Amino acid sequence: MYMIINEEISIKTRGNCHVIDITDHVTERLSRSKLSNGCVVLFHVGSTAGLTTVEYEHGLANHDLAAAFEKIAPQNGTYQHEQTWHDDNGHAHVRATLVGPSLIVPFRDGQLTLGTWQQIILIDFDTRTRTRNIICQITGE
Amino acid sequence: MYMIINEEISIKTRGNCHVIDITDHVTERLSRSKLSNGCVVLFHVGSTAGLTTVEYEHGLANHDLAAAFEKIAPQNGTYQHEQTWHDDNGHAHVRATLVGPSLIVPFRDGQLTLGTWQQIILIDFDTRTRTRNIICQITGE
Amino acid sequence: MYMIINEEISIKTRGNCHVIDITDHVTERLSRSKLSNGCVVLFHVGSTAGLTTVEYEHGLANHDLAAAFEKIAPQNGTYQHEQTWHDDNGHAHVRATLVGPSLIVPFRDGQLTLGTWQQIILIDFDTRTRTRNIICQITGE
Repeated sequence: MYMIINEEISIKTRGNCHVIDITDHVTERLSRSKLSNGCVVLFHVGSTAGLTTVEYEHGLANHDLAAAFEKIAPQNGTYQHEQTWHDDNGHAHVRATLVGPSLIVPFRDGQLTLGTWQQIILIDFDTRTRTRNIICQITGE
Repeated sequence: MYMIINEEISIKTRGNCHVIDITDHVTERLSRSKLSNGCVVLFHVGSTAGLTTVEYEHGLANHDLAAAFEKIAPQNGTYQHEQTWHDDNGHAHVRATLVGPSLIVPFRDGQLTLGTWQQIILIDFDTRTRTRNIICQITGE
Repeated sequence: MYMIINEEISIKTRGNCHVIDITDHVTERLSRSKLSNGCVVLFHVGSTAGLTTVEYEHGLANHDLAAAFEKIAPQNGTYQHEQTWHDDNGHAHVRATLVGPSLIVPFRDGQLTLGTWQQIILIDFDTRTRTRNIICQITGE
């Protein structure tokens, strides 16, 4: 029988390009759903973090991704957004828009179809600690 | 009962990194569908615009995003694409490929799960005015 | 009647920003499914390639996209990932994370809603030949 199950994942983040592996959170909710075949829609609620996948290891998660984003939208750059709100996170918005808020991962036999070296991550680009909310909508049979 | 409802959103754009907030268009179609639980798949038909989310305010929408894309794929750069067609929008194709054409947004109780400061946007990278077509497929119960 | 059909697409790639048009593979599986209305979820299994769309022509596919990725994450840059594994593909991971592994394309009347000049592509950023696996989950009625 076809079902839609809505879950949420709530995580504390440090900001400043903090890369958090949320694979176990997604797997746990999928397991609880008892569904075997379908897809998980993940959606980050907010405009200064994004969802994607990576091989989650120290070098990529704590250095290399940050270096690439620093090229595209440097933290100390000039952003008109900051003149609107008198804040300091213009780069965070630009980066999050590029990564995007949504990710969809199929599952079969109750298992996500991720590669062995592929983890689901949230990248928090904001400039302060936050509690982030990710919608985890599991659809299938 | 599970349903798939196909809608379209048609909008006039100016090109040159024109950022258009299409949230109200999506919300209106979701409301009309009478569905309460599921997801909206958005897909831009074409290869010189992309879909994502942003905090839609003047600085980001009219300046900061354009500045970042200008770094990645400058408007006055050299593109072999332009030699193929003798046109001027190589940068538009590269940018659209990076942003991507698809976005998926869950809804619950008939409401999109967007953040308060998070709007759905089309970014049109082409170099002229266009009428853009976005598929809005609403699936749920 | 609502169905979920799981297919896979397996392709040989050369790496080094090899752009492969997989539209025909997706169309063939959609046709075989006999479904007329729904969406195709595509997911690349692995962390050094990504899925998106482009106008698939020589200039973009073989030159312009590579030039943009070379700016964001140069092949000869320094990556801590390479110190973790003593390999040479740090740039490939960073690029794949930016493009993302998932893409969703609606279909109506048995036809993908792609534009005339819009093809579905895998970009393989790794530094060697690979056989790539793409999950192709077709959901609809």
